[in-house]
Amino acid sequence: MSKVGIPKGMRDFSPVEVSRRNYIFDTIRMAFKKYGFQAIETPTMENLQTLTGKYGSEGDQLIFKVLNSGDYLAKSSEKYLNEKNSKALTAEISEKALRYDLTVPFARYVVMHQNDITFPFKRYQIQPVWRADRPQKGRYREFYQCDADIVGSDSLINEVELILLYDEVFSKLGLTDFDIKINNRKILSGIAEIIGKPNMIIDLTVAIDKIDKIGLDGVEKELLEKGFTADDLSKLNPVLHLSGGNEDKIKSLKVILKDSEIGLKGIEELSHIFFLLEKCKIKKANVKFDLTLARGLNYYTGAIFEVCTNQVQMGSIGGGGRYDDLTGLFGLKDLTGVGISFGADRIYDVLEELNLFTEKIGSNLSVLITHFDQTAFDYGFEILQTIRAANIHSEIYPSMVKMQKQMKYANDRGAENVLVIGEEEIKTGLLTLKNMASGIQEKYTVQDLILKLS
Amino acid sequence: MSKVGIPKGMRDFSPVEVSRRNYIFDTIRMAFKKYGFQAIETPTMENLQTLTGKYGSEGDQLIFKVLNSGDYLAKSSEKYLNEKNSKALTAEISEKALRYDLTVPFARYVVMHQNDITFPFKRYQIQPVWRADRPQKGRYREFYQCDADIVGSDSLINEVELILLYDEVFSKLGLTDFDIKINNRKILSGIAEIIGKPNMIIDLTVAIDKIDKIGLDGVEKELLEKGFTADDLSKLNPVLHLSGGNEDKIKSLKVILKDSEIGLKGIEELSHIFFLLEKCKIKKANVKFDLTLARGLNYYTGAIFEVCTNQVQMGSIGGGGRYDDLTGLFGLKDLTGVGISFGADRIYDVLEELNLFTEKIGSNLSVLITHFDQTAFDYGFEILQTIRAANIHSEIYPSMVKMQKQMKYANDRGAENVLVIGEEEIKTGLLTLKNMASGIQEKYTVQDLILKLS
Repeated sequence: MSKVGIPKGMRDFSPVEVSRRNYIFDTIRMAFKKYGFQAIETPTMENLQTLTGKYGSEGDQLIFKVLNSGDYLAKSSEKYLNEKNSKALTAEISEKALRYDLTVPFARYVVMHQNDITFPFKRYQIQPVWRADRPQKGRYREFYQCDADIVGSDSLINEVELILLYDEVFSKLGLTDFDIKINNRKILSGIAEIIGKPNMIIDLTVAIDKIDKIGLDGVEKELLEKGFTADDLSKLNPVLHLSGGNEDKIKSLKVILKDSEIGLKGIEELSHIFFLLEKCKIKKANVKFDLTLARGLNYYTGAIFEVCTNQVQMGSIGGGGRYDDLTGLFGLKDLTGVGISFGADRIYDVLEELNLFTEKIGSNLSVLITHFDQTAFDYGFEILQTIRAANIHSEIYPSMVKMQKQMKYANDRGAENVLVIGEEEIKTGLLTLKNMASGIQEKYTVQDLILKLS
Repeated sequence: MSKVGIPKGMRDFSPVEVSRRNYIFDTIRMAFKKYGFQAIETPTMENLQTLTGKYGSEGDQLIFKVLNSGDYLAKSSEKYLNEKNSKALTAEISEKALRYDLTVPFARYVVMHQNDITFPFKRYQIQPVWRADRPQKGRYREFYQCDADIVGSDSLINEVELILLYDEVFSKLGLTDFDIKINNRKILSGIAEIIGKPNMIIDLTVAIDKIDKIGLDGVEKELLEKGFTADDLSKLNPVLHLSGGNEDKIKSLKVILKDSEIGLKGIEELSHIFFLLEKCKIKKANVKFDLTLARGLNYYTGAIFEVCTNQVQMGSIGGGGRYDDLTGLFGLKDLTGVGISFGADRIYDVLEELNLFTEKIGSNLSVLITHFDQTAFDYGFEILQTIRAANIHSEIYPSMVKMQKQMKYANDRGAENVLVIGEEEIKTGLLTLKNMASGIQEKYTVQDLILKLS
């Protein structure tokens, strides 16, 4: 007998969980489509070399590799085998790996199918990814990413559309207080430039990114350790103390960055995005310029985004930005793009904590037909055909068991209504419908029942 | 630069392909829900030992194994390494594998979650599976299965429901001539019994299963080779020459099988299914008793099904049956169940060949807004906000380019309509809507446009 279990970091999803997850995916998908994005899908397995080297050396370790089929050791080096050199042997016994994110496969897709694509290409992708990370609360080894990107257009209208998309999705999911933080990598470059340390932008952004966690003092300490001087910090000081609304901050930065061409370009982009946003109706989001937003990924070159809710203690539930050379690694240079991602698992946790999954989500059985005997069953089975023809989600309890057991099933199954068929119902043709939530029982003809439930 | 490609037997899906595939999945999913089935999802990776030994030794070879993370060779046997013993080493360096079908994970799920499940449990599952098979036309290494099963109920009403489900889905997909073939394993057992070779039922069914391919003579030749005698064949002869409609065949078989208890039980089950079906309205299917239907899988114990279309040369597009001990391997004995599966890839090919994917499927852009200059763009961007608020799928061409290029994009993108914004439209407020299929242009106010497109 096989032991029953699943690999750590993996999950089974019950019917209720699947319904709730699909509610999130469907809400995101509907918005993607409404905004003109088209779905693509890429295979679960990519060639290992497509993925290797794209996520840093730590990322490479976390890629799940698939063992070659057949006699995979036949051609492997005795040397590696004798040395038990796992790392070197991997390349010889594994040529495929599981998708680690949706970004690299998307870049590979665009390059591979460039002749069939009309640019600008607005694609979305909702698929699982796999990472051999240490599992912990909220971190799984298999999880979904939901990405939308526009490639082949440098118009800032695209950034605005993505902000509107975030607003639409999170408002629709029922969040009432959430921030869409926006910054621009060029502004961060500009700041590094005026300090005279343009090559240290990464150290700078990594440190600034921690301001919420370790405070201003912590950031300054880290910057000193990384090689910034006290003089640099004094130049940085007005930057880190920017205050006021979006416009005030932009105005102050224009002065601070007056000698940095790239910095001013970043401010211009940011201002234009806010200008365009004024023409749009934001539903619920607070769109905030946040200079401390850096985002770790190095491929961003323009706007960067992050979404956080203020209703629940939780990390970012979405993020993205503009990049200028995503496909360069695969030989297609200078293709600009901008994209966002939704963190489905965290969104699930937020909605659960805020009790935003309504009862309706998960129940998809409108009527269970129950019966007292074989005659009632036969009668009920005919009713079932009639109401199903009217597209009502329905089933009949399949065996002859006590009414109590049928009712327990209706309850556990989350049936919205139960139809009780007995002698009287057959005689009069009037059917007793019991609403499971309210307990109210009412009598209907079949036709009235269909009208009521349609 | 990385070479651009994907592993053999794997596929990218373009926007049109994703839309068409989702049309198939959605049609199946809607029917599953309507019939009261609930979705579960299981992880992509199962423990290797959960899968090993469930698909025969040939199947075991086709399971994709995932390499353990980290220094996976550290604890492996020098002996296997020195011998280059791939087979023995696998168990030491791989403990996880990719889902090979949906049936075994479902059985594992039922056993693992048995305390949370109310039986009868009607579950559906639409997820990809992976097999390291040699790729060929129509056979891929990653493909979707769409399964529905009822476990924990031996009522034959379940068989009937599954037949109705097949009828509903394939009718809805536009097929007009297809057979749902039905047989019963007990009848086949009965036949083996009256020949006096009850242990040779598998040889018998495997041979009978080939009657369409190799003819009656071929089947007889194969049976002789397997150890059946000329006398056995003469007893089999009336069985293989059964003719007439479902009722005629059943009547003849009752005589032939009069001395086999199990055979008569099979006939009784089959008759009852046909009796129940008479109370139902079949849309398009021909439900046919087919004694030559055997289906390879050994776990079937009662009814077996297979669906074929007569409109296109293609193998079966669906199949299933009843089993009595699916979960026994995982320690839960005597749980009966019945299930069916839809072959999504073959269904895709059938619909494509019959031209049953309508134009509507794939297009999800109702309006592309085009513009002659910056003023027109700004005006169009405001229109976009208004029509999107009315849930119309729409986008604006994001950059200032020639109208011709914008029109080419609209065409390639499959936009249903184009809104052309120029000086006159801004002046009059009357918008020019061009239908891309008909070429007809008409003028609308924004409000009328929303009414027209909603």
